[in-house]
Amino acid sequence: MADRLPRKNDPASIGARREALGLDGAVTAADLAPYAKSAETVTGMAVLPVSVAQLRVSLGEYGLSEDGDVVETGRAEHDVTVPLAHTEGGLTASLQRGAKAVDLSGGFRTYVVADRITRASCFICCDAGDALTLARWIGERVDEMREFLRTSDLAELSRYAVLREAKTHVVGPMCHVLWRWTTGDAVGPNMMTRNAYALNMAYVLPNAPVPIERALLEANMGGDKKPSFEFFQSGHGKTVIAEATLTDEALSRVLRTTAADLEALSWAGTHGAVASGMQSVAFTPASAIAAIFAATGQDLGMVGTSSMAHGTGRRVDGGLQASIRFPGLEVGTVGGGTTLPTAREWLALLRCEGPGKVYRFAQIVAAAALALEISASAAMASAGSENFFRAHFERGGSRS
Amino acid sequence: MADRLPRKNDPASIGARREALGLDGAVTAADLAPYAKSAETVTGMAVLPVSVAQLRVSLGEYGLSEDGDVVETGRAEHDVTVPLAHTEGGLTASLQRGAKAVDLSGGFRTYVVADRITRASCFICCDAGDALTLARWIGERVDEMREFLRTSDLAELSRYAVLREAKTHVVGPMCHVLWRWTTGDAVGPNMMTRNAYALNMAYVLPNAPVPIERALLEANMGGDKKPSFEFFQSGHGKTVIAEATLTDEALSRVLRTTAADLEALSWAGTHGAVASGMQSVAFTPASAIAAIFAATGQDLGMVGTSSMAHGTGRRVDGGLQASIRFPGLEVGTVGGGTTLPTAREWLALLRCEGPGKVYRFAQIVAAAALALEISASAAMASAGSENFFRAHFERGGSRS
Amino acid sequence: MADRLPRKNDPASIGARREALGLDGAVTAADLAPYAKSAETVTGMAVLPVSVAQLRVSLGEYGLSEDGDVVETGRAEHDVTVPLAHTEGGLTASLQRGAKAVDLSGGFRTYVVADRITRASCFICCDAGDALTLARWIGERVDEMREFLRTSDLAELSRYAVLREAKTHVVGPMCHVLWRWTTGDAVGPNMMTRNAYALNMAYVLPNAPVPIERALLEANMGGDKKPSFEFFQSGHGKTVIAEATLTDEALSRVLRTTAADLEALSWAGTHGAVASGMQSVAFTPASAIAAIFAATGQDLGMVGTSSMAHGTGRRVDGGLQASIRFPGLEVGTVGGGTTLPTAREWLALLRCEGPGKVYRFAQIVAAAALALEISASAAMASAGSENFFRAHFERGGSRS
Amino acid sequence: MADRLPRKNDPASIGARREALGLDGAVTAADLAPYAKSAETVTGMAVLPVSVAQLRVSLGEYGLSEDGDVVETGRAEHDVTVPLAHTEGGLTASLQRGAKAVDLSGGFRTYVVADRITRASCFICCDAGDALTLARWIGERVDEMREFLRTSDLAELSRYAVLREAKTHVVGPMCHVLWRWTTGDAVGPNMMTRNAYALNMAYVLPNAPVPIERALLEANMGGDKKPSFEFFQSGHGKTVIAEATLTDEALSRVLRTTAADLEALSWAGTHGAVASGMQSVAFTPASAIAAIFAATGQDLGMVGTSSMAHGTGRRVDGGLQASIRFPGLEVGTVGGGTTLPTAREWLALLRCEGPGKVYRFAQIVAAAALALEISASAAMASAGSENFFRAHFERGGSRS
Repeated sequence: MADRLPRKNDPASIGARREALGLDGAVTAADLAPYAKSAETVTGMAVLPVSVAQLRVSLGEYGLSEDGDVVETGRAEHDVTVPLAHTEGGLTASLQRGAKAVDLSGGFRTYVVADRITRASCFICCDAGDALTLARWIGERVDEMREFLRTSDLAELSRYAVLREAKTHVVGPMCHVLWRWTTGDAVGPNMMTRNAYALNMAYVLPNAPVPIERALLEANMGGDKKPSFEFFQSGHGKTVIAEATLTDEALSRVLRTTAADLEALSWAGTHGAVASGMQSVAFTPASAIAAIFAATGQDLGMVGTSSMAHGTGRRVDGGLQASIRFPGLEVGTVGGGTTLPTAREWLALLRCEGPGKVYRFAQIVAAAALALEISASAAMASAGSENFFRAHFERGGSRS
Repeated sequence: MADRLPRKNDPASIGARREALGLDGAVTAADLAPYAKSAETVTGMAVLPVSVAQLRVSLGEYGLSEDGDVVETGRAEHDVTVPLAHTEGGLTASLQRGAKAVDLSGGFRTYVVADRITRASCFICCDAGDALTLARWIGERVDEMREFLRTSDLAELSRYAVLREAKTHVVGPMCHVLWRWTTGDAVGPNMMTRNAYALNMAYVLPNAPVPIERALLEANMGGDKKPSFEFFQSGHGKTVIAEATLTDEALSRVLRTTAADLEALSWAGTHGAVASGMQSVAFTPASAIAAIFAATGQDLGMVGTSSMAHGTGRRVDGGLQASIRFPGLEVGTVGGGTTLPTAREWLALLRCEGPGKVYRFAQIVAAAALALEISASAAMASAGSENFFRAHFERGGSRS
Repeated sequence: MADRLPRKNDPASIGARREALGLDGAVTAADLAPYAKSAETVTGMAVLPVSVAQLRVSLGEYGLSEDGDVVETGRAEHDVTVPLAHTEGGLTASLQRGAKAVDLSGGFRTYVVADRITRASCFICCDAGDALTLARWIGERVDEMREFLRTSDLAELSRYAVLREAKTHVVGPMCHVLWRWTTGDAVGPNMMTRNAYALNMAYVLPNAPVPIERALLEANMGGDKKPSFEFFQSGHGKTVIAEATLTDEALSRVLRTTAADLEALSWAGTHGAVASGMQSVAFTPASAIAAIFAATGQDLGMVGTSSMAHGTGRRVDGGLQASIRFPGLEVGTVGGGTTLPTAREWLALLRCEGPGKVYRFAQIVAAAALALEISASAAMASAGSENFFRAHFERGGSRS
Repeated sequence: MADRLPRKNDPASIGARREALGLDGAVTAADLAPYAKSAETVTGMAVLPVSVAQLRVSLGEYGLSEDGDVVETGRAEHDVTVPLAHTEGGLTASLQRGAKAVDLSGGFRTYVVADRITRASCFICCDAGDALTLARWIGERVDEMREFLRTSDLAELSRYAVLREAKTHVVGPMCHVLWRWTTGDAVGPNMMTRNAYALNMAYVLPNAPVPIERALLEANMGGDKKPSFEFFQSGHGKTVIAEATLTDEALSRVLRTTAADLEALSWAGTHGAVASGMQSVAFTPASAIAAIFAATGQDLGMVGTSSMAHGTGRRVDGGLQASIRFPGLEVGTVGGGTTLPTAREWLALLRCEGPGKVYRFAQIVAAAALALEISASAAMASAGSENFFRAHFERGGSRS
C-alpha cells in the first residue's frame, strides 16, 4: 500500500494529508473545524447546490402514547419551503410543478402511521428446540426488559431508545430477535445498538433458560440500510402516508394530462413493477428522498431503505386521487449529520431543527416526494411520454 | 400557498430568494455560479465533510467489444485514496481497517462483469395477441433499430447511448420493452431516455404491425432508482465483483476475529436476510456507496439501486475468502454532478475524472465497499459483537 | 360451445355425461356415490398409486392456550408409516433412505410453533385519512368482535373459527384487514370466510366511524394458495420446525456423503436461491408435501403455499445438523377431502384421522419432508452429484 | 424404528405390507400392477373424484423452430371438456360459470409464448476470477456443447432434451450455469438431469480452462418445484397467456357483476398482492392448476411453480378485458404419471394424450384457470363479496 497518511483530524494532520494528496482547490476551501468530529481522517469537503420548492401541506401534529403508538393531536395547513440538494436538471422544477397542481387542488394531506426502528440480534443455540425455548422466554419478558433498561445505570445506555416489542423468529438453531424501539427525534442506530447490546449481554445471556452458543448484535433481520419485505410492510423509522386529490382542472392546466391518462399509466406501471420483481410500486421516490436527505444531514446510506414506497392512483369524481406510503422514513432532527452547519440551517428553514420536530419533518419529506411523483407521472402519461422526454432533453444535459 | 419565490438562477433572483427565506449563514457562503445550471431555483449549498481511506487493489483494465461485452485487456495493482463524504462516526476508520487487513493478505481483486443500463418502455396494445405480435416484431429488428439510431440525424439523439438488446415481456395487452444500452462514461439516464423516445416515436409507432393504443417511455420495468429482482440479477449500470482472501494472521491481528467466527456470522446473516425478505445479502454496502457517491457527484437517488449486493464468505485453507457482487453500480465519470467543482477534484484524486475511467471507478467503489463489509463483519463476529458495539459507543455519538 | 352436459350428480346424469364423453375405462370403474357431494358434475375418478415410508419421530403433543398460543404439553417417540401418492421414481426410496439415516442418528424432532390462518378483507374508503381512522377503530375492537362472533346467532357462523387478531395495513384509501383465526382440526377456508363475512357485514359496515365505499372479503393479502413473503414469515396454517442431527457414521454409511460435502452444498444452494430470487431456501419440499397431501385428502391447490420452507444445515461436532421450517402447513384432519374413503384410510394409518390430530399430522408432514431433503441433498452433494444423477437415471424413466 | 417393511413391488411384498399395516379397505381395492413401476414400495392407492367443465377456446397450433422458438402455425376454435380432480365444493361450478360468460363473449384466446426448462448446475472454483473465466468459456461453447450432446453415444443421454442456451451467473467463487432445454412433450426433469450431468462431467470438467473444486448438478438456481423470480419472469416449462374480453351483458347476466366492480377489485387485489409480498398477482390459479394436474398425471409437486401467474384486468369499450400469464406451466403429455390408466383417459378426453399435444394441453390449462379467475373474481366483486361468501357457505361444507 502507498505511504500511510496521518489519520488524525488536527489541523497539522489535515494539512499533511492535503499536501500528500495534492488537494488545494474547491475541496479545501472551508474550515474543517466544525466537521472534525463527524468522521475520521476528514480532509476536505463536498459541496452540493441546494434548490428550493414551495409546498402547501396539511400536517398532523403527533405525539407518542405510553405504548408507543403515534397519536394525532391536531392538524393544520402549513406553507413549507423544501431544500433539495441534487444536480438532476428538471427535478426541482418538476417537483414544484407537482406542488402547484396539488395546491390548486386543495393541498397535500400527510399522516404519521407508526414509529419503530429495529435492531435484530441473533442468538445461536444448540438446536431448534432450544431456540424455541429461548424465543418463548424472551417473548414473555419484554416488559421486564424495558424496565431493566429504564432503571439500569449502565453507562452505555441511551434513555432515548425505548424498547417497545421483541418479535422472535426461529430458523434452525437461530433465534432472531427483532428488538423494536422508538428513538425520539433521532434516527437512532447508535442508541438502539447500545441498548440492544446491553439487553443481549446483561439480560439475556446471564438469564437465558438454555445455553447460547453465540450472540450476534445483528444478523440481517434488522433492515439496516438494506430494503427488505419485512420493513417494506411493518416499517422502519417513521411510517408516513401522503395523499392528494387532483382536480381535473389542475391536471389539465398545470400538468397537461388527464385523470384517465394517469390512471392508464398507473395501471401499466404497477404491473411493470410486478413483472420486474420490484418491491416498491412508485415512480421515482428516491430522487426526492435523496435530495432532502443530502440537504438536511440525513444518513445517505439510508436513501434506499427510506425510499421504499407504495404508491396508488385512482380516478375519483372530478379528478384523481394519488397517495404514497413510505413504510420507513429514517429521518432525524437531532444527532448525526443534522448538527452540521448547512444541515442545521436547512432544517431551520423547514422549522424542523432540534427536538420535537421529527414527525413534522417526516411528513414534509413524504409530501415533497408525492409532489415529484405526481409531476413526473404526468409527464410520463402524456402522449408517447413526450413531456417526460422534453424534460430530459431540455434540462438533462447532453452527456448524462 | 405562500408568496411565490422567483424561480430563476440569476444573482438577483438568488438574492431575492435568500432574503425572502432569511438565509444568510453557511448555506450562502459560496458563489453559486458554477451550480446555476445544475438545477432550477438554486438558492444555497450543502457542505459535507469528506474523509479519505487508502486501498490497494488489483484493478482490471477493460474495454467494450463491438457486441457490447466487457473485455479485460490488462490488470495491475494500484494504490488508491478513496474520498468518503458522510458523517457516520467510525465508518472511515472501519473501512480503513478492512483495507489494511486485505492489504496484509494480498490486496483486493476486482472484475467488471458487464455493462448495461435499461430504459423500459411499454406499448399498450388492443390485446395480448397484438402485444405478442409486436414483441416478436421488435425482437427481430434490434440490429435495424441500432442502425436507425446510428444513422439518424434527429437532433435529440445521443451518440453515446448504443442500443445493445431489446428484451420484451408481454403481460395482458402490455408489451414492455427493455431497451438495453451502453452509455460510455456517463450513467446515461438522459441519453438513453432520448434515444428510447426516438425509437418509440420514430421507429416503432410508425412501423408497428399492430395498432398501439398508448406508448409509455417507461412503465417501471427499467429499474430506475428502485431496486428490483430483474436488475439484482441481470444488472443495471456496471456489474462488478470484488474479492479478497484474508489470511488467518490478518484476521487475528488487524480484525481481532477468526475465519470460523466470520463464517458463523455469514451463515446466520445469510439466513437472516432470507428470513426478512431482503434481496441483498450483505452487511452495509449502502454506507460505502453513499459516501463515495456524495463525494464524487454521483446521483444520490441511485444509492439504493447501486447498493444491491450479493456477498459471500467461506473458509479456505489459511483464511477466509470474501466477495461481493454489485449487479448495478450506476456510476459515471462524465456528465451530471461529476462536472461540479468538488466532485471533479475528488474524482481526480482517484484518477477517475473524465472519459475512459468509468470501469476503473466502478471497481474502486466495489473494493471500498468490500473493505467496509469485511471490517464491519469482523466487529460483528466478535464475542457478543462487542467490537461492533464499541465502535458505535465510542464513535457514534450519544444522540444518533 | 359444445352441447351442454347435464350438471347434476345423480346416477342418470353421471351416466349421461360418461356416455356423451365416451368414458368407459379406468376412470369409471368405481362407484361415485361417496364423491357426489365433493364437487359439482362429478363424472369419474383419478387413481394415484400410494407408496409408504417408515419414520421415527419425536413428536410434541400440543394444545391451544386461551390466547391461541400453541403450547407443548408432552413429547414422545413415535414410529409412523407415511403414505405418499406420487409417480416420481426414486422419491419414496430417497425419502426412506433419509429416514433411515436419521433413525440411526437419533431420530427427527418436530415442533409446532404457531397456528393461524388469515382471511384478509379490504375496505375501500374515501381517502387515506378515513382508512387510517377505520384501521385504528378496528384495532381497538378485536376483543369485542371475537365476542360478537361467539355470541351471535347468525346461521352462517362457524364456532370452530376463532378470531385471534386483526392486523390492519393501509395503502391509499384501502384499509386491508388481516383477520387471523384458529380453525381447529380443519384448514378452515370456508369457516373463516363465513365468519369474516359476518364481521364485515354485520359488525364493521353498520358501525364503522367513516363511510366505506366498498367491502371486499379478500383482496390478496390473505395468502390463499399464493406464496407470499407475509406468510413465509408470519405463517399460514401450522408453523412447524423439523430437525435432525445426522452422525458422521450415518452420513457415510447410509447417505454416502460427509458433513463437509453437505455443508458446501448448503452454502452454494442458499446463495443460488438468493441469486434466483427464490423465497424458499430448501431442496425439494414440494415433492414430499404434494405426495402426502394427495394421499390424505388435503387441498392440492395449497401445495405451493404449504411448501414454502426455510431449510438450514451446519456442521456440528460429530455430524451435521439439518432443519426445515414450514411457516404454513395448511393441513386438516377433518372436513374437505379428508372425509373421502381412501384419504380417511391413509389418515388412519398415520393415526391422524378426525379431531385432535392436526398438530400430530403437521409434524409428520414436516419430518417426512425433512427426510427427503436430507437424502436428496446427500445425493446432490456426492462428487459431481453422481448419486443424484444415478437416481434420476435408474428410476426416473427415459421419457420424463 | 418399527419393523422394517418389505420394499419390493411384487404381489407378495405388497400383500405383506398391507397385512402389516392393516390396510384392507378402499385403498386396496384395485390391482396395483399398472403402478408397480411408478414408485418404490407401492402399497395402495388414492382415489380422487373428477368433475368436468366445458370450455370454448381459440387454441393456437405451435411448433418449435430450429432455434427453439415457439412458432404459431395455425389457430382454431375448439370445444374442450376439462377434467378436474378435487374436492372443493363450488370450484367446478364456478369455473363452468366463468367459461359460460366467456363463451357468450366470444371465447378464450390462448398463446404459447415460449418453451424452456432449466437445470442449473454450479461449479465452485478457487475464486471469483476463475469462476468468471469459466463462465466466459462456457458462454462461448454452447453450440459446441449442443453438438456434443447430439453426437455423443453416452448411454445416459436423452435425445429429447435439446440444449438451447446456457446462462451463467457468478457469485463469489460459484459459477452457476442455467442449462436451458426444450424437452419435447415431456416436462423433462429426468432427461435434462441426465444431459446436464453429461455436460458437466464429460464436457466441462475435462476441458475447463480453470480448476473446478466441486461440480453440483443443481444448486437452487433451476427453479425446480420452488417458485422464484427468475422463472416467474423468464419462464420454466411452457409460458402461456390466456385472455378473454367479457361483454357487459355476460358480466351482468352470467356473473352478476359489472366491469366497474371488477376493475375496482382488480385494483385493490393488485395492491394487496404488492403489500403482502406476493409474487403472483392473481386470484386462485392454483385451484385450477392442481385440479387438472391431479386428473391428468402431472407432477403435483409442481403445482406451486406452475401456478405462478400474472393476471390483469382493464375496462374496455363494452366490457372488461381479462388475461393471465403463466410463465411456467410444467406440463407433459408423455412420461411420468401421464402413462397411468386414469391419467391417460383424461388426457384422451382432452385429445392431449401422447406426442405432439403438449402445447395444446398447456393452453387448455391456462384457459381453464382463467375461467376460474374470472368467475371467482366476479363473486368477490359483488357487494360485500356476497356471492363469494354464498358459494363458500352453500357448497363449502360446515367443517372445512
